[in-house]
Amino acid sequence: METIDFRNMTITIVGLGMEGGSYAIAAKNYLKPKKLFAIDINEDVLIAAEKLKVIDQGFVNPVVPLQASDLVILCVYPSDVIRFVRDNMTYFKSGAVLTDAAGVKRKIVDDLSNIIREDIDFVPGHPMAGNEFKGFLYADKKIFEGNSYLITPTSKNKQQSLSLIESMALKFGCSKIYITDPDTHDTKIAYASQLMHLIASSIVNCDSYTDDMKNFVGGSFRSATRVANINPDLWTDAFFENKDKLLEQIDYFMSNITLVKSALIHHDKKVLHTFFEKSYHKSNSHDDL
Amino acid sequence: METIDFRNMTITIVGLGMEGGSYAIAAKNYLKPKKLFAIDINEDVLIAAEKLKVIDQGFVNPVVPLQASDLVILCVYPSDVIRFVRDNMTYFKSGAVLTDAAGVKRKIVDDLSNIIREDIDFVPGHPMAGNEFKGFLYADKKIFEGNSYLITPTSKNKQQSLSLIESMALKFGCSKIYITDPDTHDTKIAYASQLMHLIASSIVNCDSYTDDMKNFVGGSFRSATRVANINPDLWTDAFFENKDKLLEQIDYFMSNITLVKSALIHHDKKVLHTFFEKSYHKSNSHDDL
Repeated sequence: METIDFRNMTITIVGLGMEGGSYAIAAKNYLKPKKLFAIDINEDVLIAAEKLKVIDQGFVNPVVPLQASDLVILCVYPSDVIRFVRDNMTYFKSGAVLTDAAGVKRKIVDDLSNIIREDIDFVPGHPMAGNEFKGFLYADKKIFEGNSYLITPTSKNKQQSLSLIESMALKFGCSKIYITDPDTHDTKIAYASQLMHLIASSIVNCDSYTDDMKNFVGGSFRSATRVANINPDLWTDAFFENKDKLLEQIDYFMSNITLVKSALIHHDKKVLHTFFEKSYHKSNSHDDL
Repeated sequence: METIDFRNMTITIVGLGMEGGSYAIAAKNYLKPKKLFAIDINEDVLIAAEKLKVIDQGFVNPVVPLQASDLVILCVYPSDVIRFVRDNMTYFKSGAVLTDAAGVKRKIVDDLSNIIREDIDFVPGHPMAGNEFKGFLYADKKIFEGNSYLITPTSKNKQQSLSLIESMALKFGCSKIYITDPDTHDTKIAYASQLMHLIASSIVNCDSYTDDMKNFVGGSFRSATRVANINPDLWTDAFFENKDKLLEQIDYFMSNITLVKSALIHHDKKVLHTFFEKSYHKSNSHDDL
């Protein structure tokens, strides 16, 4: 793959939270663009990022940075990606590449493909990267390292736009680029990510989660509940953007719990043993996960 | 607490799997008993442990080591603890202290308190220690380090027997001794450990767990499924030994999943947001877990 030089580009990050802040720090360090701008509704965060030399300049009003930017990276909640692009459609520089980092893809791709200007190219992206914290303070250029970067290209995407995003992800330290379609993406993410966050929250929200738990917990509990420290705004938005797929995965998962519950009630040791053998063999045959 | 000298004692470990092997290695290193014996049905494991100098001598027949031992540590599956003690009751040395490492306590305590000889003392124990592997090959003296050691004393336990087990646990590197009763223990463990293992297995047993998952998983998935690599024999036994408590915890957990499912179906963003806020605040107020 061709190596792309970002040093003559102006890049704008939209939304300077944990994810957007991480893009900004990684861009500053690994891409070294001519100018790195950020747009956020919170002026204090923009000033802080300027003072920390993470960005060259911050803007509450998006017009000026969008008119100047060759690459715009949208790091806002899924429904806000659509709203931001729609509301600011006239300001993007002709020839600009837009990309996002949203964890659900069908609605964004469907909605934007109908309204996007012909002279700008939107490449839907999703880094398998992040942490369980919220806000710019938790931004970290290392979140990308060793993780996949998912892209769900549209039929309109130019090869050079895809190469730009791929090159950025690899410079950030991502281990691989994985190309898929929005429907597959949203199905897999409903299972591999959204269901995991639902489970962690559902464990912590049990009344059994009490002050004396620390005497009874081992690694299994700590692992299972790590992401219960959830960002309510982000995940509420993401769950509803993908609710059909998530509801399917919830039902699959619940049917397994119900199977075990039934085995316990009917004292069927064989069913439970077979269930555990299955998970033992499946998890052992996927050591690469 | 008085420090107990183990150097004049003979200790026998019953069951030389991952847990029993870990007790053996830790005893050899930290207690330095006069003699360290092991009993197992698998002679190959005993020979291997002798060759590795983990134990002084291994026995398939329990009579000789039990007759010589001041401390017997039962590291077999919960239902086998009861069976082993019952079947070998006549062989224990008068004055011996017995303890176990089983993850469920009510049945063991109830059954053994009715049949145990007056001149031996059974101290029910449960180290919050282990790993997700099975067998002596995965024994590791470090599993105890920094973890709690739970004890559910009976009314018959002598203080010096309790001190013996507590001293052992602290020499192994456990961070604290936590004294509780069997009912509380089994309730907490049903939630903090058994439910976690059920959840991990139920995630992995979904049809969605496929070969291409590695492109879509992040930390949340890896954390949540780590213990799906389960020992089917041990966990089937432990689940049925504690099934009433576990069924309660399954229902609490399922009611949370059902609440979210209903919120999604009825497009009630407020319910979901409140649910996530609750888990965010609960997990943040328990950073010590």
